[in-house]
Amino acid sequence: MTNSWATFGADLHLETTGAAGLRAGLMDALRDAVRTGRLAPGTRLPSSRNLAADLGIARNTVADAYAELVAEGWLTARQGSGTRVAQRAEPRRPAPRVPPVRPVRARSAHNLMPGTPDLSSFPRAEWLKATRRALTVAPNDAFGYGDPRGRVELRTALAGYLARARGVYADPERIVVCAGFVQALKLLGSVLRKRRIREVAVESYGLDVHWRLLADAGLHMPCLTVDGDGARTGELAALRGAGAVLLTPAHQFPTGTPLHPDRRAAVVDWARATGGLILEDDYDGEFRYDRQPVGALQGLDPERVVHLGTTSKSLAPGLRLGWMVLPESLMREMTDAKGFSDWSSSALEQLTLAEFIESGAYDRHVRAMRLRYRRRRDELVAVLAQRAPSIRVSGIAAGLHAVLELPEGGEASALRAAAWQGLAVEGLSRFRHPDAEPGRDALVIGYGTPTDSAWAGALDALVRVLA
Amino acid sequence: MTNSWATFGADLHLETTGAAGLRAGLMDALRDAVRTGRLAPGTRLPSSRNLAADLGIARNTVADAYAELVAEGWLTARQGSGTRVAQRAEPRRPAPRVPPVRPVRARSAHNLMPGTPDLSSFPRAEWLKATRRALTVAPNDAFGYGDPRGRVELRTALAGYLARARGVYADPERIVVCAGFVQALKLLGSVLRKRRIREVAVESYGLDVHWRLLADAGLHMPCLTVDGDGARTGELAALRGAGAVLLTPAHQFPTGTPLHPDRRAAVVDWARATGGLILEDDYDGEFRYDRQPVGALQGLDPERVVHLGTTSKSLAPGLRLGWMVLPESLMREMTDAKGFSDWSSSALEQLTLAEFIESGAYDRHVRAMRLRYRRRRDELVAVLAQRAPSIRVSGIAAGLHAVLELPEGGEASALRAAAWQGLAVEGLSRFRHPDAEPGRDALVIGYGTPTDSAWAGALDALVRVLA
Repeated sequence: MTNSWATFGADLHLETTGAAGLRAGLMDALRDAVRTGRLAPGTRLPSSRNLAADLGIARNTVADAYAELVAEGWLTARQGSGTRVAQRAEPRRPAPRVPPVRPVRARSAHNLMPGTPDLSSFPRAEWLKATRRALTVAPNDAFGYGDPRGRVELRTALAGYLARARGVYADPERIVVCAGFVQALKLLGSVLRKRRIREVAVESYGLDVHWRLLADAGLHMPCLTVDGDGARTGELAALRGAGAVLLTPAHQFPTGTPLHPDRRAAVVDWARATGGLILEDDYDGEFRYDRQPVGALQGLDPERVVHLGTTSKSLAPGLRLGWMVLPESLMREMTDAKGFSDWSSSALEQLTLAEFIESGAYDRHVRAMRLRYRRRRDELVAVLAQRAPSIRVSGIAAGLHAVLELPEGGEASALRAAAWQGLAVEGLSRFRHPDAEPGRDALVIGYGTPTDSAWAGALDALVRVLA
Repeated sequence: MTNSWATFGADLHLETTGAAGLRAGLMDALRDAVRTGRLAPGTRLPSSRNLAADLGIARNTVADAYAELVAEGWLTARQGSGTRVAQRAEPRRPAPRVPPVRPVRARSAHNLMPGTPDLSSFPRAEWLKATRRALTVAPNDAFGYGDPRGRVELRTALAGYLARARGVYADPERIVVCAGFVQALKLLGSVLRKRRIREVAVESYGLDVHWRLLADAGLHMPCLTVDGDGARTGELAALRGAGAVLLTPAHQFPTGTPLHPDRRAAVVDWARATGGLILEDDYDGEFRYDRQPVGALQGLDPERVVHLGTTSKSLAPGLRLGWMVLPESLMREMTDAKGFSDWSSSALEQLTLAEFIESGAYDRHVRAMRLRYRRRRDELVAVLAQRAPSIRVSGIAAGLHAVLELPEGGEASALRAAAWQGLAVEGLSRFRHPDAEPGRDALVIGYGTPTDSAWAGALDALVRVLA
């Protein structure tokens, strides 16, 4: 017996010192032995005195390890029968092994996928400064369970910023801070469903992840045709069941046009007449190049529009910080929904963003990025005019992406060519709603995505695909 | 007309300079006038030339402001009819105003509510250091849309920490980082419900917010009697419908006892025999005073136990950082659920926590807090022994709270006395499951909650309540 038990000591003496370390090491070794079946259920263990002698360690260390493992349920200690490996039911056969979840897309040499800003531009030093200030001035209660709506410091900073930069009619009492647009839509979907709304109209081009979020909440999604003036909001009148509509008014995603003023008016009229809600996805409202940004739709009727924004395009998606400016009538339900989803967003990051905005660093960063993206857009347009002059470029007044119109059937062949060039890029059809009419062939080019140093190579690869 | 229009200029000249500022100011003034009804729908605006002259600003500034407001839907510009305030449907009467959502509890002079650590102890300087390191070493892709499971750096750090400190059988591939325990339970509830599970057994004492989360997912919650050895897990055999059980094995909340080894074995046997899941809420496993922490139940059967932990007690609830160590069979569903809830948790805070753990700062902080809380516990016990010797104190081997047993009927009168003393404290009945048998009278004292400077006063107030 001595030999078989002494093997438990092999690992111990190598790695640990002190009674606590030896005890932990012995416990690990015994747990492993039980787990792997080396020690069968019911096996009687040597007395602590004997095992201690075998291992050359103090008896108390062994006795303590035994006691812990009894408390944890690995061993049993019964009067008269000593210490034994616990009897336990056979485990059920584990389910077949699921392959580890990994990002689906293989690495490409060049990346012009839309939807992500230039991640190398994240203002690390400025963000650290804001973090330092936030950690210095935060009251103790910031570290506790806080208001589900978010910290008042951030809601106040956002109200000021959104009024100034986006024409939002904002009141800190009407803002709920959330973890990006995904969470906002998830929470809105659940609240709409609880209100017995069954349909939310969407644009005929958009992101399938958003549609899936609404579908998960049990909502149906009839779609509004998107044309050169944005979504045809007049079609809402024919959708009797729709209790809300999800729109990208400042810059339709992905076609890139702002919603026509008449259609802005029409959707507000629809909301007023039917009591419907407008969900305004203002995902890249800051980035307009050829004139001032188009103001938010929300200002037209703050009681009927939910204004949704994030830092995902302006700073980084990895921050997972977003906000909802809500009608009064939704505040209680949405605050509850947020609280019962994750209680609140991280207080420290909220305070950091508040500092970042109030110090002017946010405005400076947005201005600098606007110049950078605008330069890239101009280069894209110029290079295509020169080297692929038959391609029409659209949706370029704003945002981080452009649409390149292709001849009929051109999308599939361009995507094949892109794969050969190691260029990650999306076709427009990828963003088409399942109920939408078949549409034009096009590529959606995320010119905001590459780092500055990767941009020239990506642009070159794109030209090779299209030439 | 000149006069009425010139009033729009009053605010402008005071606050703004430059064409951009003047345009923004004029736009704000016009939006306000439309919103408040001062400018009725259909009203024709003066020509840009005339208004510019009235206001003493450049004509282009007015023309630009008009164009923006047309784009935004506030104004219309029709050939031959000039610029007018847009016609819009009458707004529906807004819903009755909901009072602002505020924390329910009024401020008390003394706070011994359970569930929160000493917020003044948050290690601000060490956390800033970890943030600096995280911001320095983070790869660019950390700022993008990441793995819904969380950053691999944090999952690796957690796997090491949990194995070492809590006896968890942990693999970074089996961890999902989440926004605290609330989100974990919310996501688990939705996944269990999708698996057609209708009942989750809970302990007869616990937190109503957790029960509400499960109820929101559509789950019923039969309860297991809690006694001096924790939850009677043997009762699971009689609950035919229960597909899972939520437990606090290391330190029952709020009664404070560890789950008896036989009951640990019984619940694992139940899970194996029925295919049920055990949800292990390890909320304060780090804080054990009289011997080593009781290891996690999860180690006994990693394929049947979901181990749930957070930084809410060890660092701060405001961080909203938690983790789930999952059976292989739940990985795909839970990763999906997290992704469709908020995509992922904040990458920067994840990297910061990873640095905090790997640098040893987490262990140091937990050790320091364990000493601090232990000292408070000892003071609580000593003071009560001296000044309220009839009160039995229980559940004190671990954690941040204690249970003070009171004579029958004593709870309500103690709570009334506490209110008079300005002492915020909870009665045990507050934590009793609605289906549970009526139980003993007691107070649950969160001795971890006050700051060091507030502790003596709070303890004194408690003694006055009990004496």
